[in-house]
Amino acid sequence: MPEPRLATALKDTAIAVQAELDRLIPLPATAEARVHEAMRYALFAGGKRLRPFLVLASADLFSVPRPDALRVAAAMEMVHTYSLVHDDLPAMDDDDLRRGKPTCHRQFDEATAILAGDALQAMAFQVLAESETDPDPAIRMELVRTFARAAGADGMVGGQMIDLQAGNVTYDLDQITRLQNLKTGALISWSVEAGAILGRATPAERSALAAFGLEIGLAFQIADDLLDVEGDAASMGKAVAKDADAGKATFITILGIEGARNTAAELVENAVARLDLFGEKAFLLRDIARYIIERRS
Amino acid sequence: MPEPRLATALKDTAIAVQAELDRLIPLPATAEARVHEAMRYALFAGGKRLRPFLVLASADLFSVPRPDALRVAAAMEMVHTYSLVHDDLPAMDDDDLRRGKPTCHRQFDEATAILAGDALQAMAFQVLAESETDPDPAIRMELVRTFARAAGADGMVGGQMIDLQAGNVTYDLDQITRLQNLKTGALISWSVEAGAILGRATPAERSALAAFGLEIGLAFQIADDLLDVEGDAASMGKAVAKDADAGKATFITILGIEGARNTAAELVENAVARLDLFGEKAFLLRDIARYIIERRS
Repeated sequence: MPEPRLATALKDTAIAVQAELDRLIPLPATAEARVHEAMRYALFAGGKRLRPFLVLASADLFSVPRPDALRVAAAMEMVHTYSLVHDDLPAMDDDDLRRGKPTCHRQFDEATAILAGDALQAMAFQVLAESETDPDPAIRMELVRTFARAAGADGMVGGQMIDLQAGNVTYDLDQITRLQNLKTGALISWSVEAGAILGRATPAERSALAAFGLEIGLAFQIADDLLDVEGDAASMGKAVAKDADAGKATFITILGIEGARNTAAELVENAVARLDLFGEKAFLLRDIARYIIERRS
Repeated sequence: MPEPRLATALKDTAIAVQAELDRLIPLPATAEARVHEAMRYALFAGGKRLRPFLVLASADLFSVPRPDALRVAAAMEMVHTYSLVHDDLPAMDDDDLRRGKPTCHRQFDEATAILAGDALQAMAFQVLAESETDPDPAIRMELVRTFARAAGADGMVGGQMIDLQAGNVTYDLDQITRLQNLKTGALISWSVEAGAILGRATPAERSALAAFGLEIGLAFQIADDLLDVEGDAASMGKAVAKDADAGKATFITILGIEGARNTAAELVENAVARLDLFGEKAFLLRDIARYIIERRS
């Protein structure tokens, strides 16, 4: 469990983001409602809401109005959710369950899940572009531009493409790092950077936050790999961890458990040091960075 | 065949858009290149480039710099192409061929096709948001906002969702019209409206062009249905037209061939009348509107 201060902030974020998503994607009474239903099903399936949390915590450093930051947090969660919906499809990871509930294509059907993912991506950009997100169109534009890049072929989707080919090639540490920086790092880093963009941060502040995001994103991924292996070791007799099973290189197969744990810890320490610029008020970003490698699930 | 004046303009557009797309999505030397390859494969498969043509012809009414209009035309084609790539997937229309070539998922694989579609959508918004598209961020923002809405659950994707359910319900004329206005009309209308946004059109000019787009979009769809039925009648012994075969209502099943032809002609005449506002210089939009119902393929 996270420290009480962090636990409260995470819970508050989850509630606020849920309400914002509900407001932004109401269920219409028209014939296309099934796609909205599927979008809402996927969005409201739970999850840690880590990325929205990072948007809000970063925006708070600059006293960004909460309603503005919440819209950006919601847009972030829409893109994260679309990526999970498409990832779960039979042609990709072929998962039947996510967080204990049927995946979107199992609850609805494949075609609806594809469309729901597509519509979530479009909606994210629509929300960022609307004037309610920030009165200055140049700020909204910078959000859209950087978000589109982080989500697309040179960001998240590019990372997924590399990951799909990982069964055929054995990646080395640099290649795995690049894969993860694209696949999960780009959007985690953008979440933190988005607060800086909304907050009219100085270039030094903005790049410190983006770098912080990239480092904790990588630490998060290593921690996931560790949980995967350790969870597996704990439940003897179960099949070995999924990635290792697929013959894929991971941070663990390359660095070993101890090495991976040390690397994650170093990444978090580097990341936290970048927050010195902001003094005490960056406490939630420090808390979440440390929690990322200490969590048990 | 279109009149020589229109034929030349269509050909020039196709060449210019092809070059712009090639410039905007180069093939990288990095591990994720496969997704760029698939994006380029789908983009360069040919096609009429009708939507980019509409962007350029509309922008020309306001003397928008050609490089700006070409970026918007390319973004439009990226979203149109992503929708075809996802539409062709086995879970959707399950098509093996498009314009005589293997569909994206047949040429690559399903997972790559899903990712290529996702990345094309992200890239479209990135291109619109970049400062090269227009020096004024408020204009870029208006493009992103309206485009995202036209492409998403309240536009194209919503129309696809209604269409997917058309096997189970028999739609009446109003319902078919709404389906088509969302599925193809929203983006065709946006193509024409985008020129007006780039061109700082008056509200009256902008709404005339958007309405023109919606009307020719519907006429285009009716013409498609007619070609489908007539093409079928011409080649005796072949299976009946695909939609009718699936028991779906179309403009033809509701209006009959003669009625559908008259409706399309009326739509085009209404659309063309809206161009009076622009005088003689709207000749290309008039030409394309009339060609839409006269074409034989």
